[in-house]
Amino acid sequence: MSRSPGRKQENHKISRELFVLTYGALVAQLCKDYEKDEDVNACLDRMGYSIGIRLIDDFLARSAMKKCRSYSETADVIAQVAFKMYLGITPSVSCSNATGNEFSLILDKNPLVDFVEELPAERASLCYCNLLCGVIRGALEMVHLAAEVSFLQDRLKGDAVTEIGITFLRKPEDRKHRRN
Amino acid sequence: MSRSPGRKQENHKISRELFVLTYGALVAQLCKDYEKDEDVNACLDRMGYSIGIRLIDDFLARSAMKKCRSYSETADVIAQVAFKMYLGITPSVSCSNATGNEFSLILDKNPLVDFVEELPAERASLCYCNLLCGVIRGALEMVHLAAEVSFLQDRLKGDAVTEIGITFLRKPEDRKHRRN
Repeated sequence: MSRSPGRKQENHKISRELFVLTYGALVAQLCKDYEKDEDVNACLDRMGYSIGIRLIDDFLARSAMKKCRSYSETADVIAQVAFKMYLGITPSVSCSNATGNEFSLILDKNPLVDFVEELPAERASLCYCNLLCGVIRGALEMVHLAAEVSFLQDRLKGDAVTEIGITFLRKPEDRKHRRN
Repeated sequence: MSRSPGRKQENHKISRELFVLTYGALVAQLCKDYEKDEDVNACLDRMGYSIGIRLIDDFLARSAMKKCRSYSETADVIAQVAFKMYLGITPSVSCSNATGNEFSLILDKNPLVDFVEELPAERASLCYCNLLCGVIRGALEMVHLAAEVSFLQDRLKGDAVTEIGITFLRKPEDRKHRRN
């Protein structure tokens, strides 16, 4: 934590290929461990969650991000700062409902699947990148934002784009507070 | 492959924390899957090997590296180019035998264990970063260099430094050729 900014920047950057291949090894191992795609997906989400609740500290420290004032701003920060920082890509963001608590991140390119041609036929329900949903969910929870995060579209499954849906959930305390 | 060098550079760099935490999730999963540390170590080595034989193409393309003329040069390239490229660190290299085929890579800092305090008592024989050995072994094999790669010292186990030993093995054909 006492590193100078320049050195810090250099130290934190690595080449992505080793990560992408290691992630592939993790998914392959889970596919060995669990017969059902749903179980693999759930496990990836859980792992991601555990990662997210730790990664948020690193993110806040390095981005020097202040508290977001709206769900919309939060979604933008996830796409433009966090994705850029951790995966080197910037998904586009759109709000998908009138209430303003549902957002889509559209990934034109998904670096995590760089070495994946397509899912095997017997793994048609696998959410290969489900770890990312867990990471987002875990990180948001640590800044007191409950959210549901899931893949809505996936190029690996033949969709035109890869789309992650984020639904911010109002907290019970909020609702109670409003009623008072 | 048609990307410009500048863009290529940017696209390939990501932040290391997500990788480090994902690697931790992988090791944790293997510790669930296998009771014996030796089995976890062997599995990490196998996974690393599979990664290495794929990563070498990326490495050769991006480093524009020519064929090394000696084991010593190869060890230097692994430390100064490959480690730098993929993990953002540069281990120091020393040759550890008179024959000139045994080398040590000394890692003052090991980014892969950034979030690991120490190994649990019941996992005392775990080579937490054994994936790296497999990666090196696999990558070397693809450039026709057989090698044994293993951790000789590990800070996680209380050693003063982390040391990876690489022993280049003469190929049987070489020996046959020499005898003729």
